[in-house]
Amino acid sequence: MNERETGPGERGVPTELTLEGLRQRLVDFAAARRWEPYHTPKNLAAALSVEAGELLEIFQWLTPEQAAAVMSDPERAHRVRDEVADVLAYLVQFCTAVGVDPLEALAAKIERNEHRFPVPGGAADVNPDAG
Amino acid sequence: MNERETGPGERGVPTELTLEGLRQRLVDFAAARRWEPYHTPKNLAAALSVEAGELLEIFQWLTPEQAAAVMSDPERAHRVRDEVADVLAYLVQFCTAVGVDPLEALAAKIERNEHRFPVPGGAADVNPDAG
Amino acid sequence: MNERETGPGERGVPTELTLEGLRQRLVDFAAARRWEPYHTPKNLAAALSVEAGELLEIFQWLTPEQAAAVMSDPERAHRVRDEVADVLAYLVQFCTAVGVDPLEALAAKIERNEHRFPVPGGAADVNPDAG
Amino acid sequence: MNERETGPGERGVPTELTLEGLRQRLVDFAAARRWEPYHTPKNLAAALSVEAGELLEIFQWLTPEQAAAVMSDPERAHRVRDEVADVLAYLVQFCTAVGVDPLEALAAKIERNEHRFPVPGGAADVNPDAG
Repeated sequence: MNERETGPGERGVPTELTLEGLRQRLVDFAAARRWEPYHTPKNLAAALSVEAGELLEIFQWLTPEQAAAVMSDPERAHRVRDEVADVLAYLVQFCTAVGVDPLEALAAKIERNEHRFPVPGGAADVNPDAG
Repeated sequence: MNERETGPGERGVPTELTLEGLRQRLVDFAAARRWEPYHTPKNLAAALSVEAGELLEIFQWLTPEQAAAVMSDPERAHRVRDEVADVLAYLVQFCTAVGVDPLEALAAKIERNEHRFPVPGGAADVNPDAG
Repeated sequence: MNERETGPGERGVPTELTLEGLRQRLVDFAAARRWEPYHTPKNLAAALSVEAGELLEIFQWLTPEQAAAVMSDPERAHRVRDEVADVLAYLVQFCTAVGVDPLEALAAKIERNEHRFPVPGGAADVNPDAG
Repeated sequence: MNERETGPGERGVPTELTLEGLRQRLVDFAAARRWEPYHTPKNLAAALSVEAGELLEIFQWLTPEQAAAVMSDPERAHRVRDEVADVLAYLVQFCTAVGVDPLEALAAKIERNEHRFPVPGGAADVNPDAG
């Protein structure tokens, strides 16, 4: 991506690629189209779940081996990037609607998980569900 | 990860809060616990979908009004932050597993949507599904 | 599958519409197309979740009022029936793969819930989550 | 609900186990607890998706081999039956709320799929997604 394409295309000023920068673009995007009334916390949580399902759909019939090679198929690779973007967009918009900073939330969760799942001697036996 | 980047709470050195910084902490976290074998693209896509469902669960019986006030209930507010963190964690780990930059994917999607959904004169009638 | 069980619309012999009758048609359908290798418990649980997301997608931007009237829109009504069918199909196929009778499972759950949620004097305050 | 339909375990009168019989018990269960106001189509579609996610959660970190043996672990087997029941309960309640007969919907979908996916000579290559 060269500088002309780096950002929203306004005045040729490149945007640094940060979550906050993209969040602001999503806010502007929705405002320009008057979509805010639809962007309630409940609707956005539903939309996030729907898009996560669409990402999973790509993998549902794949063997572990096929799934590991998913990005070597250009059509599947495009779908993966597209669904990743949708999930992230709705997550960011949900966070905006409820006033949560997703990076702070994740940092706090990692802290909690570091206490909840101490590094074991025999880590291989540990339940991997860090949720 | 060098010591300066090890994260908040350790040695009192604050880490700048970026998605890339958190991504690296998640990579280290999983590696220290030997969880990488579980972190296949298919498993992570499933886990992401499961966590998005857990976020939605908070809202499933709430009226739009109750949902809008979700953060004024401390227990619900904690659950919201916790599930946001889980969704973001699995999204970032999924992206690591398939080699996708989520910020680039989202920037590209916003570009596409700006063409797909031009700002209309009467935007209020437009279907809000930007997916 | 003998002729009497062949299904509605074929030779004019009606089939009694039961979950077990439909289950058998789904088994035969998959076998005729050699899809059984794909129909592992894990894949079918993923597919079920994906289809439940597609059903939810119909409702994600609707107000409660619009959602209540969903069947008065012929196109949406068709989508609703189609996604209901997909959810039920994958649920039944999942149950076949793991050897669970879904009707027995539901009957047992209702029994448990009747003890877990006794009919209260002031039922309106009770948490509605019977899951 | 008359005594003959009261359900297994009550007064020793067995109920024939049918989807319609269970549907009626779910209707009575919700009515006795005054939960109908929560049981809107949108809420029930969300709840169905959430429960499908909980079923998937059981499998998310399992290898295909572990997943195939899921019912040999009594605790996992109980969770599977429990989540199957929740998915079916919310599907049936959703169908009641929108006035759809799930068995008719599935029968019609199988008819459509029989035309959409004719039995091929070399069926093994066919995309298994009958959704």
